[in-house]
Amino acid sequence: MGQLVRVQNFNVSRDGFGTGEGQSLERPFGHADPATMFSWSGATAHAPMRTEPGGTYGLDDYFTRDFARNIGAEIMGRNKFGPQRGPWRDLDWEGWWGEEPPFRTPVFVLTHHPRPSIVRGQTTFHFVDASPADALARAMEAADGKDVRIGGGVTTVREFLDADLIDTMHVAVAPVDLERGVRLWESPDELLDRFHLERVPSPSGVVHHIFWRR
Amino acid sequence: MGQLVRVQNFNVSRDGFGTGEGQSLERPFGHADPATMFSWSGATAHAPMRTEPGGTYGLDDYFTRDFARNIGAEIMGRNKFGPQRGPWRDLDWEGWWGEEPPFRTPVFVLTHHPRPSIVRGQTTFHFVDASPADALARAMEAADGKDVRIGGGVTTVREFLDADLIDTMHVAVAPVDLERGVRLWESPDELLDRFHLERVPSPSGVVHHIFWRR
Repeated sequence: MGQLVRVQNFNVSRDGFGTGEGQSLERPFGHADPATMFSWSGATAHAPMRTEPGGTYGLDDYFTRDFARNIGAEIMGRNKFGPQRGPWRDLDWEGWWGEEPPFRTPVFVLTHHPRPSIVRGQTTFHFVDASPADALARAMEAADGKDVRIGGGVTTVREFLDADLIDTMHVAVAPVDLERGVRLWESPDELLDRFHLERVPSPSGVVHHIFWRR
Repeated sequence: MGQLVRVQNFNVSRDGFGTGEGQSLERPFGHADPATMFSWSGATAHAPMRTEPGGTYGLDDYFTRDFARNIGAEIMGRNKFGPQRGPWRDLDWEGWWGEEPPFRTPVFVLTHHPRPSIVRGQTTFHFVDASPADALARAMEAADGKDVRIGGGVTTVREFLDADLIDTMHVAVAPVDLERGVRLWESPDELLDRFHLERVPSPSGVVHHIFWRR
């Protein structure tokens, strides 16, 4: 099948926003309520951040258990690593992912301000000032034959979509309107010229949108 | 999460039959048409029997790509291995799974007529005359911490359900009525006292039924 470039478990509101307005250290998603956006995932047995036993094994769990399957590297935008903008003012603050980030692979953080790599648990963060295509070439090599996940945020997913570098994409559309913030799309139909799309409603309230290249 | 006992990608007709009438070497599912029952799976990128590139990445593929995830052993009934009944008349005929069976783990074949184990590709078939609970204990040990798949046929799945040994179960209900054969259920609702159930219709026409223990 070759190496795929995959977006996994990406969350947007019904009106197409991936992040609300006013991102900060305390509010990584701005005015968006993370509970509303992500609770479908957190309830499942295989939620990437789950630390206790339990959870559901229904449809939503098929998506969370696919999050790490055959992934060898992730690419994320700087905002997904942390809320700082411009030159790093505080190298001691090492992102909001804690001692055991849920990625467990090399992660390439896109930034115009490179800094030394950081190892946390099974994850290593590399900071690269590169185009999507060049960052992807590095991630593909690091993934060692496995797939590369484009981890977001929404600006990063858009950049990779615009460069036509995405092979498969799973987006969970939450039953909430944000009205402002950073948009992934006006409508998922915008992508139909390049992708197959299946919409699968879940009992949890989200509608899973599954895209794969035509 | 501990070791789970899972039924994966098991197929029944809308009226609850897993196998038609008149199983034979030429017709492993009797009068049931395998194309109608299994085409949803064969069309996907991760179909266990796929040998060529291609295939779909939609909802159905989440189920086929879950088939082997974290599975360390399978238990199957003798009829899934081959159509012979009673004492083995022909030890040279080694089942209908070919040179590279899609299991790629130890497989325990339930039979009242044990015979020497068979290695084919990455799969080893062991033949055991044991109760469901005893066969499961052997499979759990062989799975080395991973889960055990109950592979069918329908009589074997029923025996494990009746012994209350199943933790999760995925059944794809095909849009066809068989009217006779071997039944899994009159209705999936029979299992609601012990299992959660989500019904997820797929664009392919099957309705995925996902069960997990209450």
